Amino acid sequence: MPFDLDAWLATRRAEIESVLNDRLPQPERIDDPGRLVEAVRYSLLSPGKRLRPLLGLAAAQAVGAQLTPAVRLSTSAIELVHCYSLVHDDLPAMDDDDMRRGRPTNHKVFGDAVAILAGDALLTLAFAWVAQAGALAEQECAGQAANYLQASGVLAQASGMSGMVRGQARDLGEPAPTTLAQADQLHLEKTGALFRAAVEIGAVVGGASPAQLASLVRFGQAYGVAFQHADDLADNEHPALADMARQRLTDLTSQAVRDLDGFGDEAMPLRALAAALGHQA
Amino acid sequence: MPFDLDAWLATRRAEIESVLNDRLPQPERIDDPGRLVEAVRYSLLSPGKRLRPLLGLAAAQAVGAQLTPAVRLSTSAIELVHCYSLVHDDLPAMDDDDMRRGRPTNHKVFGDAVAILAGDALLTLAFAWVAQAGALAEQECAGQAANYLQASGVLAQASGMSGMVRGQARDLGEPAPTTLAQADQLHLEKTGALFRAAVEIGAVVGGASPAQLASLVRFGQAYGVAFQHADDLADNEHPALADMARQRLTDLTSQAVRDLDGFGDEAMPLRALAAALGHQA
Repeated sequence: MPFDLDAWLATRRAEIESVLNDRLPQPERIDDPGRLVEAVRYSLLSPGKRLRPLLGLAAAQAVGAQLTPAVRLSTSAIELVHCYSLVHDDLPAMDDDDMRRGRPTNHKVFGDAVAILAGDALLTLAFAWVAQAGALAEQECAGQAANYLQASGVLAQASGMSGMVRGQARDLGEPAPTTLAQADQLHLEKTGALFRAAVEIGAVVGGASPAQLASLVRFGQAYGVAFQHADDLADNEHPALADMARQRLTDLTSQAVRDLDGFGDEAMPLRALAAALGHQA
Repeated sequence: MPFDLDAWLATRRAEIESVLNDRLPQPERIDDPGRLVEAVRYSLLSPGKRLRPLLGLAAAQAVGAQLTPAVRLSTSAIELVHCYSLVHDDLPAMDDDDMRRGRPTNHKVFGDAVAILAGDALLTLAFAWVAQAGALAEQECAGQAANYLQASGVLAQASGMSGMVRGQARDLGEPAPTTLAQADQLHLEKTGALFRAAVEIGAVVGGASPAQLASLVRFGQAYGVAFQHADDLADNEHPALADMARQRLTDLTSQAVRDLDGFGDEAMPLRALAAALGHQA
């Protein structure tokens, strides 16, 4: 029987939405100064593909892990980091965007100050969730805390000034890339780092062996850069650059699938995710 | 021989400055897009009291811990969180401050976009440091990772939307407190949460027993609220409110010292820090 990616995605997405919704306080039930919690919920619970947590879950599954509450909580934390980066990137001082996914951006609804704080709160909460997930896992099985601490470090490294934040600083401070190599570098930092981290986090909390981890990190890195090329393709109107990006997307997703050669049927979701991305070429 | 707080502070401060300086990349030695690393160093390495890491080290010492590189790194991470909060609070969209400690604020030097990103980078880096510290400690002694993961969770809870960020949202969104109870609530969130976390983190990574931890959390909470009353006293021109705040400061620091009754000479730095704060009444 062929693997049904859509069914897998629908099940996993529902689990992620439950975590995101249930773990956030309800602003109408608490004292919510400055509508901070409302602002956090507004951006986090707006419809999204949840691709980063999905990749994390697929990676955990690829190494044979059960998708326990601790695994779900720690991979859902990656969505908080992604969401914070969108809220801050949309600010007037940054990309100055008024709309995102058909809705007014956070700062248009809640003001710049609350949008800055909501982003800060989302970023911070991500690390709280990873710590909570680790405490849960440690209760089940002593020694698990070390994996979750490692996952927390992976998330921090990928998000900060050697990853996503650095990419955003490069995007704001330097001219747009004119070569594929420059575009790759920018994509690697700005988008790729968090995709790679999502796969790595899933693998680490899933208990990957060192060899499995190395393969999955390569997979995650290729997937992340490929994703951004696919995203650019949708916007890119220059035919010559588009052809190059299309070729690069095909190459990267093929490589990503080959990185999974040593894995069994448990890696079907990851393989199918990479193949689906390659089909956008 | 009476305890020499000044000598203790000078030694510990030099250790903290080393961590802060050595762990950050040198912008002139790397590709630093948007002067992001330069902006991070500008704010973090400007002269400061380093009171939160000092409290963390004093708490670790109070429970008999050696001040190992892992303990120093994890407590220094608290300064990154404090520094991020200053950089973001100074932004035009927030408190709009041009000067801090006699120097132009981060956004005045590097622009709003880079200041937002520098704050994001500092916050993220704090969690990277706690994870690195935990990996170091785990190498020395298996099982330590659980303590550092707990410390990471304490830092996240205190900084986020149930602590410091919530306090800042309250400060921006609500009228200034008119009663001591309202002032206490605001101080507890905006300043007290991170002071309490500093003491708790030091205790946790130092291997505190549950009873020691409970006493030290009470100490940290009292110290944090007392600190903000002392800070307000310096500004407060209304004599009746100042008298009340002075009494509250004396009460809180006395309580904090009593919270350390069960500790031996190892708690001298913490006792002396609380006494020094009480003398500002």
